[in-house]
Amino acid sequence: MYREKIKVLDCTIRDGGLINNHRFTDDFVREIYKALSKSGIDYMEMGYRNSKELFPPEDYGTWKYCDDDKIREITDGIDSNLKLSIMVDAHRVKEQEFKPVDESPVDMIRVATYVKDIDKAIELVHRSHDLGYETTTNIMAVSTEIEPDLVEALDQLAKTPVDVVYVVDSFGALYCEQIEYLVKLYKKHLPGKEIGVHCHNHQQLAYGNTIEGIIHDANFVDGSLYGIGRGPGNCCLELLIGFLKNPKFNLTPILKVIQDQMLPLREEIEWGYIIPYVVTSILNEHPRAAMAMRKTEDKDKYAEFYEEMRESID
Amino acid sequence: MYREKIKVLDCTIRDGGLINNHRFTDDFVREIYKALSKSGIDYMEMGYRNSKELFPPEDYGTWKYCDDDKIREITDGIDSNLKLSIMVDAHRVKEQEFKPVDESPVDMIRVATYVKDIDKAIELVHRSHDLGYETTTNIMAVSTEIEPDLVEALDQLAKTPVDVVYVVDSFGALYCEQIEYLVKLYKKHLPGKEIGVHCHNHQQLAYGNTIEGIIHDANFVDGSLYGIGRGPGNCCLELLIGFLKNPKFNLTPILKVIQDQMLPLREEIEWGYIIPYVVTSILNEHPRAAMAMRKTEDKDKYAEFYEEMRESID
Repeated sequence: MYREKIKVLDCTIRDGGLINNHRFTDDFVREIYKALSKSGIDYMEMGYRNSKELFPPEDYGTWKYCDDDKIREITDGIDSNLKLSIMVDAHRVKEQEFKPVDESPVDMIRVATYVKDIDKAIELVHRSHDLGYETTTNIMAVSTEIEPDLVEALDQLAKTPVDVVYVVDSFGALYCEQIEYLVKLYKKHLPGKEIGVHCHNHQQLAYGNTIEGIIHDANFVDGSLYGIGRGPGNCCLELLIGFLKNPKFNLTPILKVIQDQMLPLREEIEWGYIIPYVVTSILNEHPRAAMAMRKTEDKDKYAEFYEEMRESID
Repeated sequence: MYREKIKVLDCTIRDGGLINNHRFTDDFVREIYKALSKSGIDYMEMGYRNSKELFPPEDYGTWKYCDDDKIREITDGIDSNLKLSIMVDAHRVKEQEFKPVDESPVDMIRVATYVKDIDKAIELVHRSHDLGYETTTNIMAVSTEIEPDLVEALDQLAKTPVDVVYVVDSFGALYCEQIEYLVKLYKKHLPGKEIGVHCHNHQQLAYGNTIEGIIHDANFVDGSLYGIGRGPGNCCLELLIGFLKNPKFNLTPILKVIQDQMLPLREEIEWGYIIPYVVTSILNEHPRAAMAMRKTEDKDKYAEFYEEMRESID
């Protein structure tokens, strides 16, 4: 699939940070940055710019905040065309600062939002756009929204300067026909905007659904190295690059950094195909119950968990 | 997706047997048989009926041969509507015996073949059909066949009494549009026959591609418990049953047998998402090079393996 407009964003540090409270070492982040630069990836997401009042720094690592100076410490001295993005939760904006784009290493601000917070997201899109950043809005948990509410949010976004609007399958609950439907719905209500897809891998569909998005003209696609992310994680970046035939991409540095950095990390923290997350996604539920049960000694009692979950939502 | 005609076949013992030389204990096979019976699965594949002359019994377990008496030892005394299938390699038939269906516990004989061996497969289809068995032909490695040869094989099969013809993505190399194309091609050339899909999970597409097959009217679909199978394995049966809405299926016994039987087995033998198999599948190659390198101390040198593979096929 060669389509020059397709842009690939790596969310290894941002989405991976959700399972280690954003505590990656500088060396680790630098190695990822180098590998993505060599492989021709378009964007690297460094983490969140979250409020330090809402999330005290004693509880989280650097990449929960993504201060401009901290990002520069990582990237300085490395030859790269990689653009950088940070994510901001629309409903968690407080005292965070955003400098004008030419005073920041960041190129793009991605605003994550639920449909109910779309007004906050739009305010943040305007603010970021006025500072010169590229902007996206990532509508989370779209598998649980009723269509009139979603369409109203899309129609509002159509009137903003936002560059990209993402279909985000937070619960890993969607399959190909639903992705097709949503991408077409987004395109219809967002003339002139680019559409993105961000898929989760609860049912091993993240990569397949990302391909489905590409087929239906989503041009912004997210992946992470070895699929790292909360629970089942994300679309594997290495699969995506194996699929896209644009000659600018090079798979070798990606495979190298997986063997050198991601394999050792996988020994320390869990992500991948984990049955309790299959259960929450089949039921189109937030994975919080799966996250909780994985911390107990009953973490592999799959059948009981399934029966309990079904009863609890009855 | 509720379509009554859809039949689900579990290939845990047959395809899983490829990674332990078919050495499952009777207890293990019996527990799988019980769980599949309770969950409403349509068919269980017990293994291969291979030639003992070609594959000496000192090197392989029972399920390489699937003698009728051995199967009866497993199933006797268990209440079940599960039908049983065995697989036969078209190019490995020698002295094997097949009794008439009413003297055998087997219901269906699945003939695995490459396009080049289609005449041998057809001979075996006739022989099995004449003995009263349901029959399938599973055309392996279809991602490497040129279309006129494949179409000729399909046209020949159309004239036989075979019930089902399978698209088999042995190399895990196909993505959704290719599955759609092949299922439609099979349907066109096999009027009145059922189409099946058997997908491998090298790129985490086995389940997504199986859904794609179902969407385009393939009614026979294969899965295995926890995805067991050679290397990356197969479509996960638990995902498939989570997707199919036919009320006859029950997910709970499947989750129970995964936690009780498959998790301990997974500690002993390797299957799942393994990068060298991603590499062979991206290159549309047989996984044998990945299988070989996983037995060496360089088993996690992914980048080097990718570069070597690319050079070797140049």
